[in-house]
Amino acid sequence: MKFYENIKLDEFSSEPKYIQLYEILKNLIEEGAIKPDEKLPTIRELSKKLSVNTVTVVNAYKLLEQKGYIYTKVGSGTFVSKQNDEKIQVFSENPLATNIKREEINLGINFSTLTPQSSLFPVEDFKFVINRILDRDGASAFNYVEPQGYFPLRESIWKYLRECGVECEIDNISIVSGAQQGIDLVAKVLVNFNDAIVVESPTYTGAAAIFKNRGANIIEIPIKEDGLDLDELEDVLKKQRVKLIYVMPNYQNPTSITYSLEKKLELINLALKYNTYILEDDFLTEINFSKKPNEPLKTLDFCDRVIFIKSFSKIFMPGLRLAVIVSPFNISRNLVFAKQNTDISTSGLIQRAFDLYLREGLWTRHLNNLKDIYYKRYCLMKEKLSEIKDIRFKDPKGGIHFWIESELDATIIAYNAKKRGIAIAPGRAFYFDSRSSNNFRLSFAQTDYDDITNGINILKEIFDEIKMPG
Amino acid sequence: MKFYENIKLDEFSSEPKYIQLYEILKNLIEEGAIKPDEKLPTIRELSKKLSVNTVTVVNAYKLLEQKGYIYTKVGSGTFVSKQNDEKIQVFSENPLATNIKREEINLGINFSTLTPQSSLFPVEDFKFVINRILDRDGASAFNYVEPQGYFPLRESIWKYLRECGVECEIDNISIVSGAQQGIDLVAKVLVNFNDAIVVESPTYTGAAAIFKNRGANIIEIPIKEDGLDLDELEDVLKKQRVKLIYVMPNYQNPTSITYSLEKKLELINLALKYNTYILEDDFLTEINFSKKPNEPLKTLDFCDRVIFIKSFSKIFMPGLRLAVIVSPFNISRNLVFAKQNTDISTSGLIQRAFDLYLREGLWTRHLNNLKDIYYKRYCLMKEKLSEIKDIRFKDPKGGIHFWIESELDATIIAYNAKKRGIAIAPGRAFYFDSRSSNNFRLSFAQTDYDDITNGINILKEIFDEIKMPG
Repeated sequence: MKFYENIKLDEFSSEPKYIQLYEILKNLIEEGAIKPDEKLPTIRELSKKLSVNTVTVVNAYKLLEQKGYIYTKVGSGTFVSKQNDEKIQVFSENPLATNIKREEINLGINFSTLTPQSSLFPVEDFKFVINRILDRDGASAFNYVEPQGYFPLRESIWKYLRECGVECEIDNISIVSGAQQGIDLVAKVLVNFNDAIVVESPTYTGAAAIFKNRGANIIEIPIKEDGLDLDELEDVLKKQRVKLIYVMPNYQNPTSITYSLEKKLELINLALKYNTYILEDDFLTEINFSKKPNEPLKTLDFCDRVIFIKSFSKIFMPGLRLAVIVSPFNISRNLVFAKQNTDISTSGLIQRAFDLYLREGLWTRHLNNLKDIYYKRYCLMKEKLSEIKDIRFKDPKGGIHFWIESELDATIIAYNAKKRGIAIAPGRAFYFDSRSSNNFRLSFAQTDYDDITNGINILKEIFDEIKMPG
Repeated sequence: MKFYENIKLDEFSSEPKYIQLYEILKNLIEEGAIKPDEKLPTIRELSKKLSVNTVTVVNAYKLLEQKGYIYTKVGSGTFVSKQNDEKIQVFSENPLATNIKREEINLGINFSTLTPQSSLFPVEDFKFVINRILDRDGASAFNYVEPQGYFPLRESIWKYLRECGVECEIDNISIVSGAQQGIDLVAKVLVNFNDAIVVESPTYTGAAAIFKNRGANIIEIPIKEDGLDLDELEDVLKKQRVKLIYVMPNYQNPTSITYSLEKKLELINLALKYNTYILEDDFLTEINFSKKPNEPLKTLDFCDRVIFIKSFSKIFMPGLRLAVIVSPFNISRNLVFAKQNTDISTSGLIQRAFDLYLREGLWTRHLNNLKDIYYKRYCLMKEKLSEIKDIRFKDPKGGIHFWIESELDATIIAYNAKKRGIAIAPGRAFYFDSRSSNNFRLSFAQTDYDDITNGINILKEIFDEIKMPG
């Protein structure tokens, strides 16, 4: 109890007392002054000691619990959590989660995020189309649009998808507010309490969180060098009805693996045979550096079993919140109803502007430019990584990230890298149980040539240092 | 079976055959050529008769079923549905639902929607702020923002809410993509399978649809002249744990009733006593024509039991998709996580532009202008309605709609009105079971003075005509 003796709350601060108390306890826990599994004083004890209302302590404890600093055991009291998880959140997919302080992500070199840096955004071109829309459409630009999406945009996306090999009816295309919403809508239509959902392991846990929130049971199937382990998948499918298989077949997140054509076809066959759907999350297909085509599953979907979500957040501007769903005939109507029930429709102004952007050919220009830049970064990163002897990786031949394996728990690498101003995404961020992993993901979405050179030099030093004492 | 003899599908049409077949059958049903509860031919029979693949018939039947034209009885076959519901959809809350053809809603006079007409949108002012933002913020305007919302906007909304009497911490304010999304997020945080949710009866069924999608049980409590029937509510609360009470205390949709101050306070007391939350959907409070204040529940919320959602769709521009949630301390964090899991964040460009719009004082100007226009329409509509002897209504003293009662089933009025080019919203659209109702809602959001005068003259004629033969 001695740590609590020195706590002083400021009567005159503009900050509420519970926030003050929360900050103090949080710091004590982070600094290790209060250790994991140590018991905290009861609410009554602490409020008495600090001469504050019990509500103040209740609220501070609640906040600590919400943020994962403490946990409650029924009948025994309140205890300090293990702190690993908290540190990892800094490197998780969305660097702007509200529980992360801004200064923490303003690291020198950020290899941890797949979000493109804003200097790659085609701001001037988009400003031009927005103004054209405001002049052309006036008030209409601010009215509701159909829940399924602004028709002309669905038409221009239909044309673009055809160029990518995805043949579909305009009627089966929906515009949604980003891939995250697309996954959420698909879950609303297909996933109910107690349903089984298959995901890749490792995976983007932000998708699986949606399925969990619907009360689903998540089944993890490992990824091999050429895609999902289909034998293991079929074992699962034989034993139980699976509602949905969530996959990223091109430049998977986080492994950067692209499924082989055979696996892609076989996966669709399994979906047909066992009467399930595949949810394909396509966010990087365009960024192909090899001469081999990398077909989205949807282009091979002979039996209308693939729900195709195409995100523009990683190859355009994430803040626009735009993605597209191409859905099987059977669920298209229900998807539109789900969208309407969720937020009526996606911003009409943004949809109209993106439509014009596509029609004016600006999209193609942007994509070519982006691909050039990413290609150069990819080559440099591959070259630099090959200088580190202690790691292994498979050449992704596209996309914007590498998946690196070493002999060490990647959380240790991440911890040491952070101290040197470098953010990487350790493997455990891509498993539900945050299990220990020797892999980490390095992305070049936010790093220019100097960052890549300097950052990987520092990583090399870190590997050398860690190895030395051992 | 004779009606099917004449069906001809066009081999060379660009329209898929199943769509052609769907359209033909739909028209036959709508025209009454195939009657309610009449049995349709089996898939095999019809495909043989039309010489088409069975898949074509299967898909056409599926579409007819999804749109409510037909229903299936296990073991006996496919039958035509009663057609009332379909007609009502034309008048339901969101006139742009995809299953409604555009020409159907391009009626001469539209009293059916609460969505403001686009000539009321402050387009030039908003164009001005968007361009200021693009110049000021450049690429940042297209990046992710915090899931909880762009901080400066939360700050300016905090100030605006204070002027409205809602005192809260900026930390408890979230920006969301419209009230519909706000309700969806609250449901994700609080509503689970089998939970009991109380709603007003009649109500905005678009909200209750969200609760139903979460697997909740909906309990309807009638609205009286001064608000919800609190005796009946307390009976329910005594018997079972209720997770959420969904209310619109000011200018309720559809009844236009404003709760008395006593009822507002008593409702909060009940929420505290029975440990439940109130979800307050506030979309029209600003449009108050009386001298009496109309406090949002949230201003009276002494025990942090009210989740306050403020929509800007009915008093600003619906296509922007912007609303605000002020949430109790206990659920604020989880709401932010739900938002992040749902669509990461709301468009940053729109948030930045709306922030500047508020800061420049343009919002106040717009609101005063809108209130003037609505007040004149309200006075005219009240005067014109008082000329119809066969109806009764309570003066709403604010808002944008009247709730009218007559001796007749309002569906009959709506049907006759539609034939004369007038859309009204019949009462049954606001009950889950689409029960028959003698009430209908008339809104002046889309009608100028001439529309109001002419439209209500025609309604008067309709009442006279219907009464005459009887």
